[in-house]
Amino acid sequence: MFGLGAAGAAAVGAGALAANSLLDDPPVAHASSTSGPYPFYGEHQAGIVTPAQDRLHFVAFDVTTDDRAELVDLLQEWTAAAARLTQGKESGAFGAVGGAPEAAPDDTGEALGLPASGLTLTIGFGASLFDDRFGLAGRRPAALADLPKFPGEQLIPEISGGDLCVQACAHDPQVAVHAIRNLARIGFGKVSVRWSQLGFGRTSSTSRTQATPRNLMGFKDGTNNMKLEDADLLREQLWATAGDGSAWMAGGSYLVTRKIRMTIETWDRTSLAEQEQIFGRDKGAGAPLGKKAEFDPLDFGAKGPDGKPMIAADAHVRLAHPSFHGNAHLLRRGYNFVDGSDGLGRLDAGLFFIAYQRDPRRQFVPVQMSLARNDSLNEYIKHVSTGLFACPPGVRDAADYWGRTLFET
Amino acid sequence: MFGLGAAGAAAVGAGALAANSLLDDPPVAHASSTSGPYPFYGEHQAGIVTPAQDRLHFVAFDVTTDDRAELVDLLQEWTAAAARLTQGKESGAFGAVGGAPEAAPDDTGEALGLPASGLTLTIGFGASLFDDRFGLAGRRPAALADLPKFPGEQLIPEISGGDLCVQACAHDPQVAVHAIRNLARIGFGKVSVRWSQLGFGRTSSTSRTQATPRNLMGFKDGTNNMKLEDADLLREQLWATAGDGSAWMAGGSYLVTRKIRMTIETWDRTSLAEQEQIFGRDKGAGAPLGKKAEFDPLDFGAKGPDGKPMIAADAHVRLAHPSFHGNAHLLRRGYNFVDGSDGLGRLDAGLFFIAYQRDPRRQFVPVQMSLARNDSLNEYIKHVSTGLFACPPGVRDAADYWGRTLFET
Repeated sequence: MFGLGAAGAAAVGAGALAANSLLDDPPVAHASSTSGPYPFYGEHQAGIVTPAQDRLHFVAFDVTTDDRAELVDLLQEWTAAAARLTQGKESGAFGAVGGAPEAAPDDTGEALGLPASGLTLTIGFGASLFDDRFGLAGRRPAALADLPKFPGEQLIPEISGGDLCVQACAHDPQVAVHAIRNLARIGFGKVSVRWSQLGFGRTSSTSRTQATPRNLMGFKDGTNNMKLEDADLLREQLWATAGDGSAWMAGGSYLVTRKIRMTIETWDRTSLAEQEQIFGRDKGAGAPLGKKAEFDPLDFGAKGPDGKPMIAADAHVRLAHPSFHGNAHLLRRGYNFVDGSDGLGRLDAGLFFIAYQRDPRRQFVPVQMSLARNDSLNEYIKHVSTGLFACPPGVRDAADYWGRTLFET
Repeated sequence: MFGLGAAGAAAVGAGALAANSLLDDPPVAHASSTSGPYPFYGEHQAGIVTPAQDRLHFVAFDVTTDDRAELVDLLQEWTAAAARLTQGKESGAFGAVGGAPEAAPDDTGEALGLPASGLTLTIGFGASLFDDRFGLAGRRPAALADLPKFPGEQLIPEISGGDLCVQACAHDPQVAVHAIRNLARIGFGKVSVRWSQLGFGRTSSTSRTQATPRNLMGFKDGTNNMKLEDADLLREQLWATAGDGSAWMAGGSYLVTRKIRMTIETWDRTSLAEQEQIFGRDKGAGAPLGKKAEFDPLDFGAKGPDGKPMIAADAHVRLAHPSFHGNAHLLRRGYNFVDGSDGLGRLDAGLFFIAYQRDPRRQFVPVQMSLARNDSLNEYIKHVSTGLFACPPGVRDAADYWGRTLFET
């Protein structure tokens, strides 16, 4: 198909330059090991508004002990380990080296010598934790209501839900994996890994200092995401308050995860025009259709020369837009994934969607119900995993621990 | 378990410093987006002695056409795309943007705006390509002999073998994934993805400019790896020559892949002393047991105060050492992997082993047979996938293509 002579190759090169010149953006710096550690202690957990790191290891655990004291003990141990790991230290005082040779090391060692790499660890409690095992039934927040069944979803129970989750984000996957592995190790006999997911190439920015990255459909994703600089919006839409009904969640947030498999081979055979109609943005700059630049405001009333809306009635950006959902925003910080191939000659790839919010009943649920019913993107995606977790407030200091407000107040 | 008062936390912190101070190494820079593109054209394929990048997407394809001309056409298209992708360009002249809106874009777009990120693409031909479909039966190199069955291996056919493979290495996984995906897309109707594997945290250095990284057992791996600075050794042990029997492979190399699942939960409960005995090196510095520094020479005759060998008879470094295999070296450039969890509450993790060599019959096979029979590490690992590929010489210029010497000479 391609001419392989020197002249052909030169022509190919010229075409590429023309295409690339349409892109005015600075390169997205996807990988960086330069940032120092993020503070572990604070009013809120890190890893929510923290500028989205580029690598993810997400894990959901089943609690295998029925003993509330053991669970609290584990949360305390995890907190101590997380406070160390996020600062670039080993997971325990008795590290991979320097300890007694006849004992197993506290730390598994594969991150020895690696910097903190911007690691954050964020814990969440699933609805199943509030059953009758730990005396928490009366403490379940109203906002942690089970998600409804969405049209078209094909959820796999084995990779959905979980009593606990931990989101590890870092610039280096080895650091994120090391953290999850050591938490799993500390939890041996009390928890078991229910499912875990690796991700790369953050698909949203959570700070205006970050360029907007692209999902595996090749489109910029999360242009209008809530960002850490939006102080008023975060207060209104991200952080739970004591007045919301569950005082223990004040300063916390609710996390929804969805593993969204893309049928990328089918997508890749659709025309550029159709792809752009489906999203409602152009693929190069990410501008709303009919506009020029990524951050130009969306005008849902604009019509093209043919009298039809520039942004179609079933376009993704229209259906998901806050203006159609009582101004409901989400703080998204999802990741691309490729889990090998699917046995049918295709890559098993897609988006691991992660969104934080103050109340999923008023935010994720109506937005997703609208998308699930009408989004023209549905032809190319399939939701295969779901998770809903109450992420407690931050750990204030070394005397505090993950979930203390749930167990002790 | 941990004291959570301020005093307890301080003590924990002090312990960590003591442990870390045992490490004299500079930090391993795992993530970097600063390096420019590697040249695509040359005597050898890039991605073999190229300083090992930190991310991998490896794919094996089955060829689904029986038409030799279609296969050659595909190899030419792939070569043109690879020459562009490795230089940070899109996969085709008609890119994700800038082309005709009514056509599907040539490029899937998710790497738009990303730098080349050190991407290399390396192709290999599996033994099955030399069956009767393409008239290549008489061209199969003797060195591409089927691997023997190794004791203890539990190979899964669906994730083993393949007619073709492409190894994509880069500093950014999004760039590596983008490359493989676009090659798969170009091959639609001619090849299908047989299996694919993502990896991170290179487990070997291929240059003396790189610090030795750690595998998921927490040990430095590949200290004595063949490196690009070892010109004589590379000539002797890495690159095939015309005199080896298959002239079309001159300047090429043979690739063995093994997916090695680790039972890391069991490993993590073994003592530091046992772990070090199994490897024959200490865990902190990576020094041979009884020595001080990582690159101190291995002395297999050295005995401890108890009269036993410092490095046990079944230690990994002893069994794998060139001195016991007629000075057989390998150029390893494997990666760690985590593929989620295994349904039994454990992480599905391990090492995706990659090794290049001049002749597997004299290099990988005897070394692995020795390890498979006697290595005390076998209690903690399981080989679940295997691959053997003849990687042809490099593409000389834009008129050349991957595999030309196989099809045209």
